[in-house]
Amino acid sequence: MDRYFSVDPWQVSERAFDKEKMRLAESVMSTGNGAMGLRGNFEEDYSGDTLPGTYIGGIWFPDKTRVGWWKIGYPVYFGKVINFANLIGLHVLVNGVTLDAARCEILDFSRNLDMRRGVLEREMTLRLPEGSVRIRSERFVSMAQKDLLALRYTVTPSFDACVAIEAYLDGNVRNEDSNYNEVFWETLGEEASRGAACIQVGTVENPYGAPRFRAAAGMSCQTEMRFEAAVTRGGFCSQSWTQNVLSGVNAAICKMICVETDRDGNAALLLSTARGHACAAAARGFDTALFEHAAAWADKWITADVSIEGDDVAQQGIRFNLFQLLSTYTGDDDRLNIGPKGFTGEKYGGATYWDTEAYCLPVYLAIGGSQVARQLLLYRCRQLDGAYRNAARLGLPGALYPMVTFTGEECHNEWEITFEEIHRNGAIAHAIFEYAAYTGDETYVRQEGLPVLLGIARFWAGRVHRNQRSGRYMIHGVTGPNEYENNVSNNWYTNRIAAWCLDYCREAAALAGAERCADIGLTLEELENFRDIAAHMYLPEDKELGIFVQHDTFMDKELLPASAIAAKDRPINQHWSWDRILRSCYIKQADVLQGLYFLGHLYDTETKRRNFDFYEPMTVHESSLSPCVHAVLAAELGYYDKAEDMYRRTARLDLDNINHDTQDGLHITSMSGSWLAIVQGFAGMRTVGGLSFSPYLPAGWNRYSFRFLYRGRVLKVAVENARVVISLEKGEPLAITVYRKNAVLDNELICAMPSA
Amino acid sequence: MDRYFSVDPWQVSERAFDKEKMRLAESVMSTGNGAMGLRGNFEEDYSGDTLPGTYIGGIWFPDKTRVGWWKIGYPVYFGKVINFANLIGLHVLVNGVTLDAARCEILDFSRNLDMRRGVLEREMTLRLPEGSVRIRSERFVSMAQKDLLALRYTVTPSFDACVAIEAYLDGNVRNEDSNYNEVFWETLGEEASRGAACIQVGTVENPYGAPRFRAAAGMSCQTEMRFEAAVTRGGFCSQSWTQNVLSGVNAAICKMICVETDRDGNAALLLSTARGHACAAAARGFDTALFEHAAAWADKWITADVSIEGDDVAQQGIRFNLFQLLSTYTGDDDRLNIGPKGFTGEKYGGATYWDTEAYCLPVYLAIGGSQVARQLLLYRCRQLDGAYRNAARLGLPGALYPMVTFTGEECHNEWEITFEEIHRNGAIAHAIFEYAAYTGDETYVRQEGLPVLLGIARFWAGRVHRNQRSGRYMIHGVTGPNEYENNVSNNWYTNRIAAWCLDYCREAAALAGAERCADIGLTLEELENFRDIAAHMYLPEDKELGIFVQHDTFMDKELLPASAIAAKDRPINQHWSWDRILRSCYIKQADVLQGLYFLGHLYDTETKRRNFDFYEPMTVHESSLSPCVHAVLAAELGYYDKAEDMYRRTARLDLDNINHDTQDGLHITSMSGSWLAIVQGFAGMRTVGGLSFSPYLPAGWNRYSFRFLYRGRVLKVAVENARVVISLEKGEPLAITVYRKNAVLDNELICAMPSA
Repeated sequence: MDRYFSVDPWQVSERAFDKEKMRLAESVMSTGNGAMGLRGNFEEDYSGDTLPGTYIGGIWFPDKTRVGWWKIGYPVYFGKVINFANLIGLHVLVNGVTLDAARCEILDFSRNLDMRRGVLEREMTLRLPEGSVRIRSERFVSMAQKDLLALRYTVTPSFDACVAIEAYLDGNVRNEDSNYNEVFWETLGEEASRGAACIQVGTVENPYGAPRFRAAAGMSCQTEMRFEAAVTRGGFCSQSWTQNVLSGVNAAICKMICVETDRDGNAALLLSTARGHACAAAARGFDTALFEHAAAWADKWITADVSIEGDDVAQQGIRFNLFQLLSTYTGDDDRLNIGPKGFTGEKYGGATYWDTEAYCLPVYLAIGGSQVARQLLLYRCRQLDGAYRNAARLGLPGALYPMVTFTGEECHNEWEITFEEIHRNGAIAHAIFEYAAYTGDETYVRQEGLPVLLGIARFWAGRVHRNQRSGRYMIHGVTGPNEYENNVSNNWYTNRIAAWCLDYCREAAALAGAERCADIGLTLEELENFRDIAAHMYLPEDKELGIFVQHDTFMDKELLPASAIAAKDRPINQHWSWDRILRSCYIKQADVLQGLYFLGHLYDTETKRRNFDFYEPMTVHESSLSPCVHAVLAAELGYYDKAEDMYRRTARLDLDNINHDTQDGLHITSMSGSWLAIVQGFAGMRTVGGLSFSPYLPAGWNRYSFRFLYRGRVLKVAVENARVVISLEKGEPLAITVYRKNAVLDNELICAMPSA
Repeated sequence: MDRYFSVDPWQVSERAFDKEKMRLAESVMSTGNGAMGLRGNFEEDYSGDTLPGTYIGGIWFPDKTRVGWWKIGYPVYFGKVINFANLIGLHVLVNGVTLDAARCEILDFSRNLDMRRGVLEREMTLRLPEGSVRIRSERFVSMAQKDLLALRYTVTPSFDACVAIEAYLDGNVRNEDSNYNEVFWETLGEEASRGAACIQVGTVENPYGAPRFRAAAGMSCQTEMRFEAAVTRGGFCSQSWTQNVLSGVNAAICKMICVETDRDGNAALLLSTARGHACAAAARGFDTALFEHAAAWADKWITADVSIEGDDVAQQGIRFNLFQLLSTYTGDDDRLNIGPKGFTGEKYGGATYWDTEAYCLPVYLAIGGSQVARQLLLYRCRQLDGAYRNAARLGLPGALYPMVTFTGEECHNEWEITFEEIHRNGAIAHAIFEYAAYTGDETYVRQEGLPVLLGIARFWAGRVHRNQRSGRYMIHGVTGPNEYENNVSNNWYTNRIAAWCLDYCREAAALAGAERCADIGLTLEELENFRDIAAHMYLPEDKELGIFVQHDTFMDKELLPASAIAAKDRPINQHWSWDRILRSCYIKQADVLQGLYFLGHLYDTETKRRNFDFYEPMTVHESSLSPCVHAVLAAELGYYDKAEDMYRRTARLDLDNINHDTQDGLHITSMSGSWLAIVQGFAGMRTVGGLSFSPYLPAGWNRYSFRFLYRGRVLKVAVENARVVISLEKGEPLAITVYRKNAVLDNELICAMPSA
């Protein structure tokens, strides 16, 4: 395989410049700290194709959309993650010539993401009329100080020259994906002096009553260059510096940038705070900031790292994914969530999808701890009112969690998704179940969880209809997890998870007790109705084949394996019309199998096997969320080749640009999939009904190990050739199950791997 | 019933001004001549709520749309009918005060559409500080000279006053429904002098390669007022006139406007042609133009009129509909079609829907004659290449006629409509069948018709799939005529009409002969494949109930009659979420019944009755195209009350604003429905396998009669109490069937009505 980025356990590197790969590399080289982040854009001018991207957690804009006929219940806007000011910008001139890699010959180039320290480094030599100029940049979004972005930039001409650097902040930016080239920001102020410069911008008015935001950025530079000028224009500020250097001597500048928003601070003080923080950071110096930042990353890696020996390709994949997940969400701000592109691109809009509950929660439970995971649950709990409003807008009772949101209200607007992909409600409920199973703490279920479970159960109870002929409850008009079908009847997954939600709400109510139920208006009649619906839910199956049926007319399709698709037609979503995709049997991501994954404790292996054998061959895995679920199931079923194949697709999806769309940004939420594939798949970790493992070692790996937090403990699992070592690194002894045998983990447990 | 417009056989009148009804009245008072038309806007200033609308046949703009995720095959624009320059505008000042009914007290008001002559008249008295001012306007879009719009305007103050009139043309207009308030026109020139004034505009650039248009308007005024000034600004021209009048004396002006476009003329000469034609018209005078116009209308009414005695409400309804149909399409320009809003509003976009073939063709065959009807068929024949491209865009063979178009290529962009509402192809084929059956002329089928039928048959043959379990051909992923369901499997109507198309293509091929087939590349193998698919098409039915099933899972729905819907929830499309509508059993318009209407000659009465009895009660008739089909079927089944009820809904849909949306424009294509209800319903006219009738007289009517053209003849049918008189007014004797009895129509045939 021809890989664009070099393979290395801790680094992701480009060794030469390819302008066709600029957007791809910008995505991959993204850095962030959970509060903000940016793509791997160049600091200096670049007139070639690029997607500038700087994003601040929680700041968004409701972009108007219109198409065809509006129908009742449609959301009126599409919530967009918006590109914030250019913070890193430098205009660099050498003897009056602007450095611009698109206009100069590039003599050498390297761009490197150091994942261990969270630092983006670049070195580049450009040919100029008089000789060559070498530049070197290092930058990071501080994991130690959440408002800080720092960069150091060095220019070294091969000839005697005058180097001029104009360091700037520019709030005059757009989103590439705005529907009509609208500008989302208005400029509110700017200042510049020798010591510091700053700008303030705010989101423009919107007619939807969506919140508006203000943000300021301040910069202060450390340099020995000569100060020349400070400039301000609307939404723009800069400081210019020059230096005459002899051949081979550096001109260098450190630019410290701080970003403040009215999400956290007083709107009136943003500008001065941003400027003040930037000056303080500059005074403390780039190296101090870098040291603190790198130390914070080192701390994170202790718990989070997954080590793989013998396969650097796999090792790099999982580290890259963990690096990006840790850069996107830290659990510090309970109003944030895990956006599908994190801080790496514009596409998709919205901050919160069911991805969080379905794929990310287990990872954050294990490597972030129960407090971080609880933040994710509380996020939905606080948005319960919005979910009730979403349901009401459809004329339905209860709570419908949004498909895409910033605030709890639906902000995406395709009816086949927002109205129909209602199975997402199931994942919200399942996350509560999973949290309780993992932590053993039922307080959350009784308190914050119950109203959420009740809202969800009420929604399902209102959304089903009773079929008169069969006496069964049905759910028509849904889109299942497989978005390559829309508006189907009785999607097995949706019906199954709905029944499960109704049952789990009853379980939670029993746990919470009569008084708590009465408090929140949950009656026995309502519970009895939930029981009746769950007990009589129609769950389509094909008894002849012994499988669950994806939806009512699925078996009437032309059923072909994905291997029947010509290579030139893959991925089908880039080659086939939507019409053809909808009518085909091909499955975008786990659908029936998603149910068998979520509710794995309720189904036996042979049921899983029959369904896996039937559905996986028709699955094209064109959702980045697909391979991981299949990897976990395949490992459980002993389909090791398949499990490893699926692992590779999830682990290196972006590094190898497998879906040909990484240029738009990284697939952040699905990055959790590679961790799931290793931990739940290869290591067979299960957390429902106690902690258990049944690990195996993938072909070609010599060893893999990972740590995780569990009920106040730190555990480490190391899987080697023929044996598994499970260590209790911190905390009390614990009963666990390994290869279906119960054991007590005291200090270290070494188990021989059963022969296959 | 409280009717806003006065009931009168030949007039539609407002007797008082209600600003809340301004848009409604503007729609209803629309006038046109097949080439252009305009809403009933005021000539003088009106600062209240109004929808200005002037439209020119064949001129449109591809408006960009974006929503959520674009998928392969989606059209990239939505073709919009665009509002052209304000042609009628006058600024009228009396002693320096601008006349504006929104700012003055209105002392009396009447606006009247004279349908016999096609003239819009208005009288209004406004109170001004010094007294009252009476204005009177008359205008028409000439049916005799297709580029001419003429108006006469009179101002009569009750006091001595200076009257100033500035007559203008203003190209600075917008569409209310543009997606982002874009301007569709750019101004290209303007001139003004004492004798004439003119402007030229052109559609702005578009990135889709869609055609651009230029249009010019010229005006010349006849008046005895004193010329004051000629003014031009970008896209605007005017001539101002003043007159000092004594109390009770008129100031009057006639404004003659001519419109030229580069669809018909040399772009370089448009401005001078428009000015020249306007001057010539002014020289001939308003009264001459009016005389010629009224004579042209009189001619049309001779053939087209349907006379109803004893029910002025019904009479006014059918006349209004015929008036608007005749104003919209004349068959003069074979590049035009019958837009769903004609020249009366912006909504819907596109010029051509399947409405033309499904609902309008029979009317134009009968009252326009076979040449006019043939133009409608040729329109599709010429767009066959576009239809092939539409199918190719979906990855399918053959021809897919567009859901909405100007050029033959799809210009609407909701996947559930454009990709899925493919039954429209059936109506295109059926129109050829209907034309041949009506005219008895099979030349068209053999020549122009066959390639169209072949393209359509190829599409169906590529779009079906063979279900392995049953060996039947199925069609998944469609939207039937009932747009209150989307993306269903095996919609009976779609499957049935597809099978019929395949059979009819074979029939046409047999008729055309081997040589013609070889010419167009139609092979015996292909015909055999068509036969096989048609013979093994899956047609869902419920044998227990003896009905055809709308689609695979329809019978699983909660089946309720429309009478179960609360009155406050009607129409459901204005009160229920799209989600709820999709899941409900409620039917927007005839679906299974549409098939039994189109293919009525293939089904017996009892089959029709069982299906009607099952489906009609669930039908909410929220498409303007719904009631007529039900009226025809109900009449055939002897459900006279239902037939008459349906007639009333189709006949007065706009006059009584039954769907609460006439303010957006008239439901032009569905206006044919009232003619169908009378002629095919009450009079039972059938044209497949010869001409037949079985008329009855609706309750409350004393008599009704209509003329029609048939195979070189003019016939008249008059239905009276207990008898029917069928007259041959022109042409050779003819065999016809009345009440299932064969007869020869020589001069006049009088039949007694069978007692019920």
